[in-house]
This record gives sequence, structure tokens and C-alpha cells, in this order.
Amino acid sequence: MVVATQSLEELCINSIRFLAIDAVEKAKSGHPGLPMGAAPMAFVLWDRFMKHNPKNPKWFNRDRFVLSAGHGCMLLYALMYLTGSDVVTLDEIKNFRQWGSKAPGHPENHITEGVEVTTGPLGQGIANAVGLAIAEAHLAAKYNKEDCKLVDHYTYVILGDGCNMEGISGEACSLAGHLGLGKLIALYDDNHISIDGSTDVSFTEDVSKRFEAYGWHVLHVKDGNSDLDEIAKAIEDAKAVTDKPSMIKVTTTIGYGSPNKANTAGVHGAALGGDEVKATRENLGWNHEPFVVPDDALAHFRKAVERGASYEAEWQETLAHYKTKYPQEAAEFERIISSTLPEGWDKVLPSYTPEDKALATRKHSEITLNALAPVLPELIGGSADLTHSNLTYLEVSGSFQKGAYQNRNLRFGVREHAMGAICNGIALHSHGLIPYGATFLVFTDYMRNSIRLSALSEARVIWVMTHDSIGLGEDGPTHQPVEHVASLRAIPNLTVYRPADGNETSAAYKVAVENTHGPTLLALSRQGLPNLAGSSIEAAAKGGYILSDSDGTPDIILIGTGSEVALCVQAAEKLTSEGKKVRVVSLPSWERFEAQGAEYKESVLPKAVKKRLAVEAGCTMGWCRYVGDEGGVIGVDTFGASAPANIVFEKYGFTVDNVVAKAKEILG
Amino acid sequence: MVVATQSLEELCINSIRFLAIDAVEKAKSGHPGLPMGAAPMAFVLWDRFMKHNPKNPKWFNRDRFVLSAGHGCMLLYALMYLTGSDVVTLDEIKNFRQWGSKAPGHPENHITEGVEVTTGPLGQGIANAVGLAIAEAHLAAKYNKEDCKLVDHYTYVILGDGCNMEGISGEACSLAGHLGLGKLIALYDDNHISIDGSTDVSFTEDVSKRFEAYGWHVLHVKDGNSDLDEIAKAIEDAKAVTDKPSMIKVTTTIGYGSPNKANTAGVHGAALGGDEVKATRENLGWNHEPFVVPDDALAHFRKAVERGASYEAEWQETLAHYKTKYPQEAAEFERIISSTLPEGWDKVLPSYTPEDKALATRKHSEITLNALAPVLPELIGGSADLTHSNLTYLEVSGSFQKGAYQNRNLRFGVREHAMGAICNGIALHSHGLIPYGATFLVFTDYMRNSIRLSALSEARVIWVMTHDSIGLGEDGPTHQPVEHVASLRAIPNLTVYRPADGNETSAAYKVAVENTHGPTLLALSRQGLPNLAGSSIEAAAKGGYILSDSDGTPDIILIGTGSEVALCVQAAEKLTSEGKKVRVVSLPSWERFEAQGAEYKESVLPKAVKKRLAVEAGCTMGWCRYVGDEGGVIGVDTFGASAPANIVFEKYGFTVDNVVAKAKEILG
Repeated sequence: MVVATQSLEELCINSIRFLAIDAVEKAKSGHPGLPMGAAPMAFVLWDRFMKHNPKNPKWFNRDRFVLSAGHGCMLLYALMYLTGSDVVTLDEIKNFRQWGSKAPGHPENHITEGVEVTTGPLGQGIANAVGLAIAEAHLAAKYNKEDCKLVDHYTYVILGDGCNMEGISGEACSLAGHLGLGKLIALYDDNHISIDGSTDVSFTEDVSKRFEAYGWHVLHVKDGNSDLDEIAKAIEDAKAVTDKPSMIKVTTTIGYGSPNKANTAGVHGAALGGDEVKATRENLGWNHEPFVVPDDALAHFRKAVERGASYEAEWQETLAHYKTKYPQEAAEFERIISSTLPEGWDKVLPSYTPEDKALATRKHSEITLNALAPVLPELIGGSADLTHSNLTYLEVSGSFQKGAYQNRNLRFGVREHAMGAICNGIALHSHGLIPYGATFLVFTDYMRNSIRLSALSEARVIWVMTHDSIGLGEDGPTHQPVEHVASLRAIPNLTVYRPADGNETSAAYKVAVENTHGPTLLALSRQGLPNLAGSSIEAAAKGGYILSDSDGTPDIILIGTGSEVALCVQAAEKLTSEGKKVRVVSLPSWERFEAQGAEYKESVLPKAVKKRLAVEAGCTMGWCRYVGDEGGVIGVDTFGASAPANIVFEKYGFTVDNVVAKAKEILG
Repeated sequence: MVVATQSLEELCINSIRFLAIDAVEKAKSGHPGLPMGAAPMAFVLWDRFMKHNPKNPKWFNRDRFVLSAGHGCMLLYALMYLTGSDVVTLDEIKNFRQWGSKAPGHPENHITEGVEVTTGPLGQGIANAVGLAIAEAHLAAKYNKEDCKLVDHYTYVILGDGCNMEGISGEACSLAGHLGLGKLIALYDDNHISIDGSTDVSFTEDVSKRFEAYGWHVLHVKDGNSDLDEIAKAIEDAKAVTDKPSMIKVTTTIGYGSPNKANTAGVHGAALGGDEVKATRENLGWNHEPFVVPDDALAHFRKAVERGASYEAEWQETLAHYKTKYPQEAAEFERIISSTLPEGWDKVLPSYTPEDKALATRKHSEITLNALAPVLPELIGGSADLTHSNLTYLEVSGSFQKGAYQNRNLRFGVREHAMGAICNGIALHSHGLIPYGATFLVFTDYMRNSIRLSALSEARVIWVMTHDSIGLGEDGPTHQPVEHVASLRAIPNLTVYRPADGNETSAAYKVAVENTHGPTLLALSRQGLPNLAGSSIEAAAKGGYILSDSDGTPDIILIGTGSEVALCVQAAEKLTSEGKKVRVVSLPSWERFEAQGAEYKESVLPKAVKKRLAVEAGCTMGWCRYVGDEGGVIGVDTFGASAPANIVFEKYGFTVDNVVAKAKEILG
């Protein structure tokens, strides 16, 4: 297929293709197939529809674009470069997949300004996009006025077969259909190829029909390789339907243009190789050297700069008008989108004394969320169908539903993984929004990758995880977390809190709200826990502190978290009555504690005091770090059991007597 | 609704209902709603269709029943008791949710013989069922003869809205539709209620249409509360369609019979309470004391005993006939279903010397799988669309597809979570089958709960996880595992192996195949690794061993796993050349090592040698256990980075020089 002269649009599309081909070739690593096949649809989208300001990737009212098929990131980097990004320069593209490049192997929002969300793990992106669309709908419902559309942008996604096979995408798209998110438009790169070959190997469902079943508006572009107008018309039709999300199935050829590798699995994830690069150049009539973009194509793409500046200027006028006419709403709006917390917001955090009623920390969490909700309108979230178990309902608002997008209670349904990615999308839409997602701690297993991504992409999300140990009782081992707190602590940049009482729960929320560079996860009890003498928000915010101390150097330090701190306190009383010098340390968050200065940490856990006993109803992995060679741990290293909580705790050794006995063993 | 005289069938159905109501009431804990609402469909299924032998729950050719809505387990326990199980007696039911009961809070196959799989976490059961159906289809295709249908049973599931919302079920059902698993029949308890209330809150998709899109045969029973014949007809219709799985949507009322709580979320997961129990008794005309089943109902149910004995006797005749006519196939069949490995099977495990070519351990895994495949016909498995990256294709067979169920390569598609649960189903179908599932190690995050359940339910599954560290290079942090090996080690009963070379990979497979009481997970490298002097299958099977030693007591012990063992060896050489006494220990599996005797462990890691350095390209959590207060760890506690592997390793400190430097620091 030799092309004599190419139209301007073909030049542009091939510019995208060859930047991808050449970058992958130079890196000898990467995924050229999708960029080559999806270049036409991406070009139409970015050229004719996407409203963004290449010079200000943080302009609030930009359309959001998500490449859910994140492996195809050279497509995104190419578009960013071509449209004038100051971040993804040609040098960065030449440095694709190399140390320090702003064009890394999969798109990372925290590395490359202009990338909205971190994708790569399939299905995450489309679910993030549902979150981005939820954020837009919510902010629009809250702030827009008849005469002032402050919030008005689309969320576009390109996803492929891989994303469509993943369960998380089904969950998210089912919810999006239910919510009628009309400004979410997904382009499904229908190329019939996945890593293992033709989709006939394992994926033969009727995807369009499934999306119709979800309540989406579904279109089909039969020739996604060449019919640009067909693609454009489909996007226009999609935009015209305002009460349903739209899925445009765009049939393409993966690796389009490569004479020998197009339409094969081989072109998905490996460089073409020198010979095939040459053959593709010949095939598509592309004479340019690697990384050289024809002037007229570049000039055309760069019109996005002027267009973008103009869009933003227009919006700034709208904002100015809004500020004059609606000063109160404007102040709140600007405060939120600038990620500024309101003055004195943390004064509403409840504090407690031991005289206050013993409550489950999930109950304290509910109280705290509801104390924060009126003061922090940016707080929005919900549970994966466990609202009245997780206790996450904000009384000051209603459920976020079609026709009621101003509401703040998100009803995710039994869709933990989608909930995770949706919360990430909300957090990354506007860094001021503070989403929270909740389920049982054991079901973090269902959403671990989205929790991981919240940490990797530095998204401020609050993960509210209740029923945190064998203490949940009768539901038994399928529901009782054992390894979860430890395994979550292992995730970099995830702050894990297991609060012991009301003050510690308030502290966890304080830390979570202020943690603008990452997520915080709260592990909360099902069962009631006493408010402890010695606890305070200030102390617990340090992650670890002395709850009660001995006169002089302790003989032994008891370290507890969550529901086991009270046990340590009781054991300490017993040991003290027998003449031992006991310090009790509460360590609700390892990460926060480690972030304190060396002096503080030494004051809480002095090196010289080697006899230590940690008590936590969870697996013992990692505790050696705090108890050392001479210390011990009472934990749970086997699965739980179905029985009333008090029986399970007793059988598993969580009794005052056992703590005392173990402490005495250590004391020798 | 007072019923004057009840038909025998109504008596039976209400017997189920009230056993559930009373058990939950006595325990003051549990889920009465589903048993009450699904009792009619479950009764019809067990009474008119289920072929099983209550006195021999392990009879090979029994129909399999899965309660995917595992919280409704009193439904299952009631049916088991009523049909004559020797395991679930009335006493066990009275002890529902109490310590040691065989009627725990969610069904656990390893606790209660007759329960096929462990459910509770939503969506797992229906995916297990796909695995059970795959196993049946595979064994039938392999062993059945024209005149001898040795393998011929159905897989029935009851699932609810919760399961249908979960992504894992969509993945599994899409695959089941593609595979045309005609003997899988799911009854969808369509009661429009989930924990958060009406499904209108978040789940308004057209489920039937979605299942049609998957290629299922879909039926609707409009009156699942009372029209037993309609239910029966639907099951018959479902059985008549042999080339598609069937989904029978059965519309019911949750908590049917409870005058005040039926059709509410409240009846889902809490005891009715004394007053409502009484009201329900009145409403349904049930005069019997708690746990009392009317004689005629019990007698009717107990006919299952005789029927079952007769089914099994008939099958034993078929088996006898088969053994006579097809002795070779029969021998293999019996060997497999009795979970007996063939004599000398492990002799095919390849062993290596340092002269053998350095290969990635994922490549060693491929070689080993293919060495085992001809010798172990019970080995069946595949990858979640990464076949040629995970290197898991068995050359001796083809792809398991419609019309080719005798094949052993399962093509899961990009559906990790379903793959996990499907493998569990295969393992639990016939304890002799050895399934394996593969993806990138980082994507264990997508399937963590099914890995956990393989451990909890003591299923012998082999998890083949490749691309195990920052060593995978350019794909970057979204793909580079950091916390994964540590977090998997934290799962009870999961044996984790991170082999360093070919011998250690063979050892991992030996352990995995012999591990009849649980799963084994292999973390394998993307990149080539040298075969190490001192490694052997026998030693590595112990989980940890001395790879190389000093003359006399070591000054320091270097402990490595996987790709870092070679680094330790090189560092040891350097240190030795400088006069230090260095021992190198390879510790491919913590769990196996811990299972060795105290003497052996002391011989490898003597307490007296306190100076230790562990080197592993993964998070450091937990290593303090092996290196102690005076030791150190070189690990990765931050996310990875996109760059060529050698650069990443160097930047992250995995160089001989850095290991040597750290060792010297420790030596002081």
C-alpha cells in the first residue's frame, strides 16, 4: 500500500505512528501495535474534539483523556509532544523507557504532568475515567449556574480488548451506566488481538451487547483505520447523548502499516526491528528520519496551543464572572481546586476521654466522617455495598445518582476493584477532592491493585476498611483479616493506620486529609473498644507514642495497635502490680512513626530497652523490626475461625493472662 | 398468608427455611434472607435433579453444587442435613457459627466434607463453578468412551446480585460462554436486594442481556417463590442445551415468609429476632419447635440416601466395565482421582550444573512444566493472556476449547481473578488434578483473594508468577513487583518459592506437586540467571540451604533469594579474597525452611553467627527475622522505575560493590 502524496491528516496520523515506532525501536522495548492502530481515532479525538491547553496541563476545565490501554503510551506521549507539551519534549520521547525520562514505560501522572492517571494494569484506566466523569458531574451539579457553566468537560478513554476482559472494567462500566454519566466517552480499540493472539482464543463475547446491557449508548465505527469522518461522527453522536455514557467500538488493525506484523500478537509488545521499521516506512510512504515530524503536520498539531490558550482564556472569563456573581460558591470552588484546606478545619475532629462510651473504631470513623463532612465539602465517597457495616454514610448529603450528582454518598455496589480505581480518578481529577472508599478489610484483596496505584500515583484517597481482625467473629476465616495489615504496610507510600480508640481515629483522619501526596488506609474494628487514658489526637498523629509509662527505665515495653492496645494496658496493670516496670506504646501507624525524627523515635522505643512484646491480632510478619531479637509477638499466623469474637480472641491467645505470661517469658 | 395444610413440598421447603431461621436465631448471627428466599429453587434442584450420594460426599461422579452466595450457607447446611449427610448433623446445625462446628459462618470445604468449595467472598463461587465444569468437561473428553460414560455430571450454582456485581463473575462467565460449558447451570437468585437496599441503588443493568452477550442460554422463572414446576422446567430446559452454559434468573423475595422483614436489606444479614421468628412461624403456618423437622418432610428428603446409593452403585458398575474394557485409561483415571502420583514421576525434573546455559527461571519453569506434562496428565493450566511471557504452554497438548476439551492448555484471557477461582475449582473437583495459573507477579494483586482461598481451602494449585522484580526493567513501576513476595509470604498456608536457578525451580515444582494440602506460588525472573554451584533439587526442596561455605565459623552469612543469590555469590568471592569468612545461604522458600527441623535450621543459620546480610530485590519487610538486630538487608522499599534492567538494578543498589560495602558495614 504505497501512498503517493498524503493528505495533511494522513501526515499527522503517520507522525504519531512513527514517533511511536521509532521510540520503541530506539528503546528496543515497548508496545508499537496500539499506537499504530489507534492513531487515527486518537488523532480525530485530539484534533477535532479534545479541549485542553497544552501549555497548562492543569487548566481545570480541560477535557480529561485516559489511555486505559496504558502499554500503548507512546500514543499519548506522541500526542502530548505534537500538541505542544512543555513536559513531553522530543528529547523525552527519544529517551522513552530510559532512566529519568518523562516518557516512562507506562503513563505515570506523578512523573509526567499532563498524564491524568497512572495506567498499565489493564482495566484501571477505564475505571479511573468513571471516577473522572463522576467528579465532573458532581462539581458541575454543585457549582454550575444557569448563566455560568463553570464545570463543563468530557472524559475520553481509549481502551482495548484487554481492558474489556478485566472484571474491574465490567464493574465500573455497569456503575457508569447506572449513573447515566453522559459525558464519559470510551473508544474501544477493536483489533481482535491480545497478547495470546486472536481474541477468538478466549474472548468471543458480544461486547457491544454487554455495554447495551449496562445502559450505555453503543456505536460502531467499522473502518477505524481510514474513515476519519466516521470516527468524528461517532464522537459527535456520543456527545449528543447526554444521559448515558457512550462506547464507540472502533474496528482497527493492530500495528497498522507494518506489512508483515500488522494484525498479529507479535506487534503488540515488541519493537518492530530494523527491517520491519524500514518496511513500514516504505509501506506508508514515510521518508522521514526517526523522530522527524514533517513541518506541516507539526504546525497543524501545534494549533492546539493557540486553541488551548483561547479555551482557557474563555473559561477564565467565565470564572471571573462567576466570582462576581456568586462569590461564596466561587470561594469554595477555588479553595477546593487549589487543594487548600479551610482554616481550622481540624477543630471539628472529635476528641475523647476514658469516660466516653466505648465504641468500635468503625463507629468513631462514622462520627468523624460526619463531623468533617459539613466543613470539608470536598469529602465524597462511599462503600462497596456495606454502607451500614462500614458506617460511611454522610448524613449531610444524599446518594449520588442520576439527577442528583450534587450528592456526596457514592453507592458503589459490590464492586471493590472499580471503587478503588474510581476513587483514584476522583482524587486525580482535582487534587482538592478527597474521595474515600470502604469495604471490609479482608476485601482489600479484591482491590489491591487500585490501592497500590493510589500510592504510586500519589492520590489522596482515604481507604476506610472495617472488620479488621478475627475480632469480627462468626463470619469466619473467609472474612477475618490475618495478613492484610502487614501486607498493606508493605505497599510503598501507603500510610496505614490501625487506631485503638476515638482519639486515634481522629488522628488517622487528620493525617489522611493532610496527606496530599498519597493515600491513607484505616483498619477499623467491628467491636467496641474503650477510649484509652493517655491517647490524644496529637500523639497518635505521630504514628506511635507512649500511652503509659513506668517510673524510670521500663523493664519491658508492650507495643499494641488497634483493639490490642487495651489488652496491653490491662496486662501492664497486672505486671505493674507485680512490681514490674512496664511502658505501653501504641503504634497505630508504622509509616507515620518512621517519618518522625530519630530523637522522638528513640524516646518512644529506646534502643537500650530490649525486652519488648508486640500484640496485634494480625500476622506477625515485620514485627521483629520493633521487638528485636529479645522481644516477642502475640499475633495471628494462621487463618481465623467462625465463632463469637470473644471465643476466637481467647482461643487465639488474646487474653490478659496470655499477654502477661508472654511478657514474663521475655523478662526471663 | 396462613396456610391451612401444606403440601409435602411446602413442608420440605419450609423445613429448609426454618432450619435456617432457627440456626441463625440461636447463633444470633448469620444470614437468613437468602435461605428463606432461595429455598424453593434449592429444593427443586436437590430434590428433582441433584445426583449425589449423601453418605459418600466424595463419590466421583456426583453433581457439583456451589452456593456462590456463601453467606446463605444455612441453605446448604440444611440441605445436607436433610438429605442425610453424616457430617452436617442436627447438632452441627444447632452449633452453627460456634467454635469447632462443621457448620461455620461461610462454607469451608476443608472443614465440612460435602461442601465443594469455600465461598463467602462474592463472585468466587460462580468462578469456582466454571472450574468445576471445566474439570468435568476435560475428564469426560479424555476418558469417556462411546459405550462408557464414566464422567458425566452437572455443576449447579446458586448466586445472587452481589456475585453478579463482582468483576470476577463477569470474567468467569465470559470465559464459560466462550468455552460453551453446557453442563454448567446457574440459578440467579433475583431478589432485587443487596446489603445497601434495593438493587436500584447501584445495580440496574440488564443482567440477562449481559449473559446473552456472554453466549449463555438465559431463562427467567418469574415466580421463584411458589412455582416449583416453573423452576423444574427451566432446569430441564437448561440441561437440554448442551453447548452453552445456562443462567436461570429466578425472581424471588428475600426473606420470604417473614411478614415484616421480607424484601428488605435487614433480613439479609441479621437474625430475625424472637418476635419476627414467631411472626414468620404464624405467617407460614409452621408449628414446629426450633430444629424440629416434620417426619414426612424428613422422610422425603432422606430418599436421597437410597437414590444416591443407587446412583453410585450404577456408576461403580460403569467403572468396573470400563476397567475391563479400557484397563490403561482406567488405571490412569483411578490413579488421578485417588490423588496418587505416578511412581518415580519426579525423575523427570531437570537438574543442572554451572556449565549449563544461564536461563531465566521463567524459562526453567517452562522446561520443567513440559518435562512434567507427559508424566503427569493431571497437570492442566494456563496463563491470563501472557502465555508466551509466562512461558506456560504445554507442548504435548493443545488449547482447551469447545470441541477440544481433552486439551490441557487453558486460555484464560486477561482475567486473573477468574483464573484464580477457576483453578481452585479444578483442584477441588478432583483432588488429583493439578491446575496452574499464571500471570505477572505484580498482577497477583488482581487475584489475591482467590490465591488466599486456594490456601484456606487447601487446594493444590500452582501459581506461576513471572517478571518478579525491578529486574523486569522498562515496563516500569506499574509492572515491577516490590511488596509482592513479602505480602504473599504473609498468607497462611501459601508456600512461596523464589528460585535462583534451574535446580531450585525444579525443587519448587517438586514441592508444589507434592503439596497436597495447599497451593504453592513460584516467583520467577524475567531475566537470565546462572546455574549456581552448590544448588541442588534436594537442598532447595528444604526451602533454605548452604550454597557455599567458609572454612570454619563464618564471619558473616549472606542470604539471598532468586536473582540475588548470584549477587551474594559474587560478593562472597570478593569478601573471601579479602580474607573474610563468608557463608552464602540461598533461601528460596521461607515456609519450607521453617518446616524443617530445628537442628537443620540451626545448621544453616546458626544463632551464634549474628552478622548477616540479606539481599532480595523486594521489600525488606520480615527479613529482620533472619538477619536479626545485628544484620542488614538490601531490598527495595520504594516503587520501581522504568529503565533497562541493568540500570534499575544498579540504581537500586543491587551491585556486587554495594553488597560488599554493606557486608563490611555489618562486619564493622
